[in-house]
Amino acid sequence: MSDRPQDPRHRRGLELMNEIDPADGQRKLDDFAGIAPDLGRFLIEFVFADIYSRSVLSLRERQFVRLSALAAMGIGDAPMRANINSALNVGLAASDIAETFIQCLPYAGFPRVINAMEQLKAIVEERSGQG
Amino acid sequence: MSDRPQDPRHRRGLELMNEIDPADGQRKLDDFAGIAPDLGRFLIEFVFADIYSRSVLSLRERQFVRLSALAAMGIGDAPMRANINSALNVGLAASDIAETFIQCLPYAGFPRVINAMEQLKAIVEERSGQG
Amino acid sequence: MSDRPQDPRHRRGLELMNEIDPADGQRKLDDFAGIAPDLGRFLIEFVFADIYSRSVLSLRERQFVRLSALAAMGIGDAPMRANINSALNVGLAASDIAETFIQCLPYAGFPRVINAMEQLKAIVEERSGQG
Amino acid sequence: MSDRPQDPRHRRGLELMNEIDPADGQRKLDDFAGIAPDLGRFLIEFVFADIYSRSVLSLRERQFVRLSALAAMGIGDAPMRANINSALNVGLAASDIAETFIQCLPYAGFPRVINAMEQLKAIVEERSGQG
Amino acid sequence: MSDRPQDPRHRRGLELMNEIDPADGQRKLDDFAGIAPDLGRFLIEFVFADIYSRSVLSLRERQFVRLSALAAMGIGDAPMRANINSALNVGLAASDIAETFIQCLPYAGFPRVINAMEQLKAIVEERSGQG
Amino acid sequence: MSDRPQDPRHRRGLELMNEIDPADGQRKLDDFAGIAPDLGRFLIEFVFADIYSRSVLSLRERQFVRLSALAAMGIGDAPMRANINSALNVGLAASDIAETFIQCLPYAGFPRVINAMEQLKAIVEERSGQG
Repeated sequence: MSDRPQDPRHRRGLELMNEIDPADGQRKLDDFAGIAPDLGRFLIEFVFADIYSRSVLSLRERQFVRLSALAAMGIGDAPMRANINSALNVGLAASDIAETFIQCLPYAGFPRVINAMEQLKAIVEERSGQG
Repeated sequence: MSDRPQDPRHRRGLELMNEIDPADGQRKLDDFAGIAPDLGRFLIEFVFADIYSRSVLSLRERQFVRLSALAAMGIGDAPMRANINSALNVGLAASDIAETFIQCLPYAGFPRVINAMEQLKAIVEERSGQG
Repeated sequence: MSDRPQDPRHRRGLELMNEIDPADGQRKLDDFAGIAPDLGRFLIEFVFADIYSRSVLSLRERQFVRLSALAAMGIGDAPMRANINSALNVGLAASDIAETFIQCLPYAGFPRVINAMEQLKAIVEERSGQG
Repeated sequence: MSDRPQDPRHRRGLELMNEIDPADGQRKLDDFAGIAPDLGRFLIEFVFADIYSRSVLSLRERQFVRLSALAAMGIGDAPMRANINSALNVGLAASDIAETFIQCLPYAGFPRVINAMEQLKAIVEERSGQG
Repeated sequence: MSDRPQDPRHRRGLELMNEIDPADGQRKLDDFAGIAPDLGRFLIEFVFADIYSRSVLSLRERQFVRLSALAAMGIGDAPMRANINSALNVGLAASDIAETFIQCLPYAGFPRVINAMEQLKAIVEERSGQG
Repeated sequence: MSDRPQDPRHRRGLELMNEIDPADGQRKLDDFAGIAPDLGRFLIEFVFADIYSRSVLSLRERQFVRLSALAAMGIGDAPMRANINSALNVGLAASDIAETFIQCLPYAGFPRVINAMEQLKAIVEERSGQG
């Protein structure tokens, strides 16, 4: 990624990613550096710089959008955990996240919500040193 | 539904439904009165009274959850329009809803977001008398 | 399709399709005759002859499987109507179908179940001459 | 949950849950007791008491609905195993469940059906002491 | 969009969009100009300039990717028609597209493939003046 | 399966399966031999003999269809790895597969594409002896 430090969009995305979830973001960049470096670049430039950095909704409100979309899609456990972690990193309480999933029940159904809640439980325990 | 006016949960759900989107809510109750009256009852008692009436998240925040979950699931045009209408009814600006869909782009993909945005456009025109 | 009348699998599938929903089945064969005749053939030979004709579950039980899978996938209105019609054709009551969709609520969520129920309502009215 | 023993709906749901799959049900209640106790409550009161306890369809027929909806949604391995276990607990044969998944093939596709069947195989081996 | 003519990425995306499906592309830009102009911009800059313009796979191969992904997701009829049109515009034969959908049968299942094929049939008739 | 060696369709499917991914194919047949032998038979006769053996699209083109459909559906890690392996077995480069997933980004979204790419990375390392 270091070949684009001069691009303002790239720099803005990378800064935001590092602010929100440096460990998971860097792990993905490293994972894809060999096989698909452009996937890491699009993650930084499109997801972080173009979309996530927009301030029409507050940072807190953007978490509700992201977590709900992911729960409703039935996303895998690993990406769900990474996204829960980054929502906690930017200041949501675990109870806000639990409530987000509960509000999804009528749309996404119980199995997907229960699965999302299991990941939240695992992350909360991990962060409090019990996990 | 009138056979349960004494049930506080039922009454609370019905009041909330009528506050948020009386036209669409009543249409669904009427539609299902003959074929599946319990579906209307569960909509009132579970979706409205048990879930949607919870105040852990603000009413505004609950809209972000609901609209994002629906956009990510690729819900049909008619339910998407009803949900956009009710979000406008409780005070969201059209620009808040447009931004919610844009924030879903990296997760739900362009075709589902574009489709949701077309419904928002149709509703906005309808409500401003252009539709 | 008439080029395979001697194939017992093809004949068995075609007979079953004609027994269950001749109008919709024939319409699909006609639709795809020009553009993708093999799609009609696979519908007859795989869906009807290989799968649907199996008698491990009763014909009634196979309807519950089919309708639930389709409701949970959020299938479009036209295929849902065709499948509801064929379930009524083989003897399910409208109330059995309504209950199937209600039993899907905790898994498939309200929007998909409500949508399926609207199609059931439309078909029931159509068949009773009100539609 | 013990704070609602006097509520007849709660009691009916809890009894049914304990009859069908006490181990998995209790594990979920325990899991969510700290982080989202209302999710356990909705599972008991909505899924079990409101929906699953209905007797319009037979208990056997309700299994076909549930397993088909879950297979078609591509639900995760852990919830699929819990649901297969509870279907066996209420008297379905493993061959009924295998056939349910086979009947889903034309709708849900091979990858989801193969995945569901792998879970059935694992559960059957586990219950016969081979797993 | 005319406010970014100087941006090379924007210009490259716009040119590609106009080459592939000018009518549908321009209609979307017009639709979203009032309510969500950035959605049109991201369509041009991310979908067309960043992704679709890549030449690792041939233009023909990229159609197979796009059409298969859309069929498997069960995308709505209007976006499916627009995407079929643009695949025909860049030189695929209708028989290539029909075969793409047939190859999706084991994964996406019959209802989604049948629906995609109905859209192909409609587009082919429309383009040959029968529609 | 050995009870159908005389059926030309069965033989054709089995040969193709053994050519493409003998290890995974045989493992599935063995897995289902006890619990659902017909699932193995349909895999051979429908997926391999009826669909995958068709030569309207080239073998390379059929890989793009298959991998894109699976990525867009958010298929589990194990089936995604098996399908990546078989695409490599028939001659696709890892970079072709990586690009297929990148081309899916606008439709399937980042979480599903990132997940597919992680599986590709794991398989590439495994095959080069690093895994």
